[in-house]
Amino acid sequence: MVNQKYPLSLSPNMHHELRAHIEKIVPLTDEEFAFVKEHFITKKFKKHQFLIQEGENVTYSYFVVSGLLKLVHTDDSGKQHIVSFAMEDWWESDYLAYFTQSKATMSLECLEDTEVCCFTLENYRKLCAGLQKMEHFFLQKANFGHIGSQRRILSLLTSNAQQRYEQLLKQYPALFQRVPKSLLASYLGVSRETLSRFSV
Amino acid sequence: MVNQKYPLSLSPNMHHELRAHIEKIVPLTDEEFAFVKEHFITKKFKKHQFLIQEGENVTYSYFVVSGLLKLVHTDDSGKQHIVSFAMEDWWESDYLAYFTQSKATMSLECLEDTEVCCFTLENYRKLCAGLQKMEHFFLQKANFGHIGSQRRILSLLTSNAQQRYEQLLKQYPALFQRVPKSLLASYLGVSRETLSRFSV
Repeated sequence: MVNQKYPLSLSPNMHHELRAHIEKIVPLTDEEFAFVKEHFITKKFKKHQFLIQEGENVTYSYFVVSGLLKLVHTDDSGKQHIVSFAMEDWWESDYLAYFTQSKATMSLECLEDTEVCCFTLENYRKLCAGLQKMEHFFLQKANFGHIGSQRRILSLLTSNAQQRYEQLLKQYPALFQRVPKSLLASYLGVSRETLSRFSV
Repeated sequence: MVNQKYPLSLSPNMHHELRAHIEKIVPLTDEEFAFVKEHFITKKFKKHQFLIQEGENVTYSYFVVSGLLKLVHTDDSGKQHIVSFAMEDWWESDYLAYFTQSKATMSLECLEDTEVCCFTLENYRKLCAGLQKMEHFFLQKANFGHIGSQRRILSLLTSNAQQRYEQLLKQYPALFQRVPKSLLASYLGVSRETLSRFSV
């Protein structure tokens, strides 16, 4: 069960994180932030809970305030493939399903207790239409999300598993402390045994 | 050499294509489109010419009016990896280099004679700041670009070459008529011989 302590508005201690995150790109007046936060709700999840389940509707796009998530696709043979991890200050969802209002083809699951701010597609549109600064903010995030994906494609095409391991270690050292080795192996597309050879 | 017949403004026959493309997402008044087109220039390239070369600056983001391009990364051993193709109605650039104003790590090369509308990062920012409709347009394009990349990652993680071949054929049948088989093989990460077994 989802522990929804503040189902209709942001909890006070999450204001600060969300505002600081947005203001890395666009400064906001108090009045503007009051408008922004009306569009978000807060959710808290325990480790192993699901934010999105494959085959179900995707209601929200999530901003991670604290915790760690994995975005996973399960293939026909039941094998899990990790598309990405998401931790503090990252946005995550099954964006195809979210933007087209179709069923999820990926699941989003907590690897740690996690707090998120999230909004519906309707509120995302209202927020962008009502405040150009927020449209600008999301455009910046989307452009850099797109760049990140382009780099991952390039890495999958050009690098072997050991090189991908080294790139990941360099780019996101925190992941190596927090993510179980079996999941890192899945993200890199290698067996757990192969990964332990890199780690030595 | 680049054949730049209209270096400072859009050629009349390209207006229509660009406007129709934008108006699939946001309707524009004549006055608004006059403002939009001030920010673009037109370029024409011959087959085999480069729009972007690895190691050089990336000045423009390109909208393809006609023609076909490949976005390619060359690895240390000299092997080419095709990150994507781009044809009519697609946007393409080395976006990491474009947005961070760093040197290109990919090249963008014509597979056919190609006409593009393009703009500098400075003009992109001016256009977004001056007309919220355009910020909204680019946000939509960026979100769907991000989704496309997420799907390609998933396909690289979960599908074998034959499945990727079938997905590509279904999604972009036109590519199979226009792209040499050797390049399709490179995009799919298989040898030319393997590809011909799929095609039969």
